[in-house]
Amino acid sequence: MPDSTYKIVEIVGTSEVSISKAIDGAIAKASGSLRHLGWFEVGQIRGNIADGKVNRYQVTLKVGFTLE
Amino acid sequence: MPDSTYKIVEIVGTSEVSISKAIDGAIAKASGSLRHLGWFEVGQIRGNIADGKVNRYQVTLKVGFTLE
Amino acid sequence: MPDSTYKIVEIVGTSEVSISKAIDGAIAKASGSLRHLGWFEVGQIRGNIADGKVNRYQVTLKVGFTLE
Amino acid sequence: MPDSTYKIVEIVGTSEVSISKAIDGAIAKASGSLRHLGWFEVGQIRGNIADGKVNRYQVTLKVGFTLE
Amino acid sequence: MPDSTYKIVEIVGTSEVSISKAIDGAIAKASGSLRHLGWFEVGQIRGNIADGKVNRYQVTLKVGFTLE
Amino acid sequence: MPDSTYKIVEIVGTSEVSISKAIDGAIAKASGSLRHLGWFEVGQIRGNIADGKVNRYQVTLKVGFTLE
Amino acid sequence: MPDSTYKIVEIVGTSEVSISKAIDGAIAKASGSLRHLGWFEVGQIRGNIADGKVNRYQVTLKVGFTLE
Amino acid sequence: MPDSTYKIVEIVGTSEVSISKAIDGAIAKASGSLRHLGWFEVGQIRGNIADGKVNRYQVTLKVGFTLE
Amino acid sequence: MPDSTYKIVEIVGTSEVSISKAIDGAIAKASGSLRHLGWFEVGQIRGNIADGKVNRYQVTLKVGFTLE
Amino acid sequence: MPDSTYKIVEIVGTSEVSISKAIDGAIAKASGSLRHLGWFEVGQIRGNIADGKVNRYQVTLKVGFTLE
Amino acid sequence: MPDSTYKIVEIVGTSEVSISKAIDGAIAKASGSLRHLGWFEVGQIRGNIADGKVNRYQVTLKVGFTLE
Amino acid sequence: MPDSTYKIVEIVGTSEVSISKAIDGAIAKASGSLRHLGWFEVGQIRGNIADGKVNRYQVTLKVGFTLE
Repeated sequence: MPDSTYKIVEIVGTSEVSISKAIDGAIAKASGSLRHLGWFEVGQIRGNIADGKVNRYQVTLKVGFTLE
Repeated sequence: MPDSTYKIVEIVGTSEVSISKAIDGAIAKASGSLRHLGWFEVGQIRGNIADGKVNRYQVTLKVGFTLE
Repeated sequence: MPDSTYKIVEIVGTSEVSISKAIDGAIAKASGSLRHLGWFEVGQIRGNIADGKVNRYQVTLKVGFTLE
Repeated sequence: MPDSTYKIVEIVGTSEVSISKAIDGAIAKASGSLRHLGWFEVGQIRGNIADGKVNRYQVTLKVGFTLE
Repeated sequence: MPDSTYKIVEIVGTSEVSISKAIDGAIAKASGSLRHLGWFEVGQIRGNIADGKVNRYQVTLKVGFTLE
Repeated sequence: MPDSTYKIVEIVGTSEVSISKAIDGAIAKASGSLRHLGWFEVGQIRGNIADGKVNRYQVTLKVGFTLE
Repeated sequence: MPDSTYKIVEIVGTSEVSISKAIDGAIAKASGSLRHLGWFEVGQIRGNIADGKVNRYQVTLKVGFTLE
Repeated sequence: MPDSTYKIVEIVGTSEVSISKAIDGAIAKASGSLRHLGWFEVGQIRGNIADGKVNRYQVTLKVGFTLE
Repeated sequence: MPDSTYKIVEIVGTSEVSISKAIDGAIAKASGSLRHLGWFEVGQIRGNIADGKVNRYQVTLKVGFTLE
Repeated sequence: MPDSTYKIVEIVGTSEVSISKAIDGAIAKASGSLRHLGWFEVGQIRGNIADGKVNRYQVTLKVGFTLE
Repeated sequence: MPDSTYKIVEIVGTSEVSISKAIDGAIAKASGSLRHLGWFEVGQIRGNIADGKVNRYQVTLKVGFTLE
Repeated sequence: MPDSTYKIVEIVGTSEVSISKAIDGAIAKASGSLRHLGWFEVGQIRGNIADGKVNRYQVTLKVGFTLE
């Protein structure tokens, strides 16, 4: 197998529903413009609060993909 | 818009059910005594184990709110 | 209560379904060979991506147990 | 000199003008409710952007004061 | 057992005698105004020097307690 | 409000005059090619020295913007 | 001298008396099952509080030993 | 000299031979699409193991280049 | 593919010759007692000095392997 | 160009006026005894507070210079 | 009070007896060659083990002093 | 064996050839003015790029030596 080079980009997914949905949305969005997404790593989990409840999760991800 | 000052407090929510419930409970509790909660950030996710299973999640949060 | 000593081991649980399942699986696996598991702490949340979706979560945990 | 105990609180100052103004505003605000402020430490410098310019600085500070 | 929420405060104990005394003093002081202190964690150990000797230890602690 | 995804890029602004000018220049430059810049965060403040004086500030920023 | 390989394990010592006793106890315990202990490094110093006093120190150590 | 702005991208080079080859390959690859590469910084050195030997090094780099 | 659990151990390889030899030696040693080694990550690169030269490299590694 | 070796020293500049003045003062002071200062990096920005205002900034710098 | 500049040096104290003695010894030693020592900060607490006991503590300190 | 005190200095070695040469050069240089060098620790590995290739490695080291 020849040597490969990967690139890592940092994105933030958001969701009103859950941490998982925020991750899924960010990866789906990234896969629309980047091919060969291979892995992700969660950096930070944050969110907004309104009326004493979480109303939006924000999850920072690093996403790696193969450079062609 | 005038300049604001925010305060950040650190709290730990716990739940026997899930990480999300631990976050929700902590924010609900904090909103009982602090007004104008604006955002949160997850610091650490820990938990207790009993009989080979998670029996309580503990999630440390930093929560920010407007100082009046 | 006499003084105790604990040991901490680092494990990685994986799941195609969710972060929670990855944690549960790792703790269940560890409890098969280690007795007196007491607590865990999440280190890193990563995962693999295939076809623009998360296809496997990988959660690194530190797990503590009593040394007999 | 007798032993003292200090408390540290975390605040975020904001300013449309500069990092310094954000620090000054946060310390002025904190001194309104806390006596004996003694020192501060800058944690994070962030800001909002609008129309390709910084339109608000946000500086996170830890502020220490003597517990009476 | 119902779910609990904890709060974490950051304090600095000082002592001319030892690191332990600085920790003890800070916890004693904190327990005067906060009930249900449950645990602490040492953040930083510093001190002042005079005449080539430590003349005051300063120990930063995070202290957790149950929110009622 | 629908869920959004953001991207974060890392840039370094430089200025012979001040830290602020270095931040301003980097954000102005980035806004030339990226739309919807929303926030920034200072990572590192460095600089070059010549003749015993700062002759150029270098400020590393993470800048976030909405992915369309 | 031939090249050696070392292993590092993470343990937590506890003591009702002092930080030193917690370290000593953990090392004594570890030396019961591991030969050739060579060095340790303190990771975290924590403790439990009861009645406004430290009632148990918990010191996390990394301990290195020669792999035979 | 006018003020410049730099961009930093994160890439991962891989090599079956050595850490150096992994760095070289990643920089050669990046220079194919990015002009004015100026500096790099090693973030993480990892690798895969097969049959008790390293069979591929993976080196994460931050690479900086001038924005025109 | 069923879910797997991995364990991570921390080891230190040493070599009088090079960083690479220290890594190789540690992985070879670990593979003598642990099956299914899958990956490693370099933690710290240190060494001893004698007569103004490096006379031994010490490389700390985390090594992951499949728990059967 | 022959290979050079640099040394890095850590200094703290103080100023009643601004963060910039604290940096300038420290570099001017260091250049009085060290030749060939080449670069600096800001470590920590702290300060003292009196009467609800910053009365002295303290900026920790690492400063690099060529070893002759 | 005119602005001062401080320098920070890193030293390691050792003691067969205790962490405190290691700190004391290092500060006494440093005060032999450096005047105006003002403060210290503990970086790392390590030690050697022999026969299942700590036989030497090693405490890394940063020590600050006024530059004249 | 009496208690010793060590000092740690931070240096940066550079080499057009390799990371190892950069380390060797820095230690050789440091040993010209400092006696009793005992150990080193790699902090950061950086480098310059020219024409799509590494043209100079820069390795930051902490080097420890006995204070006489």
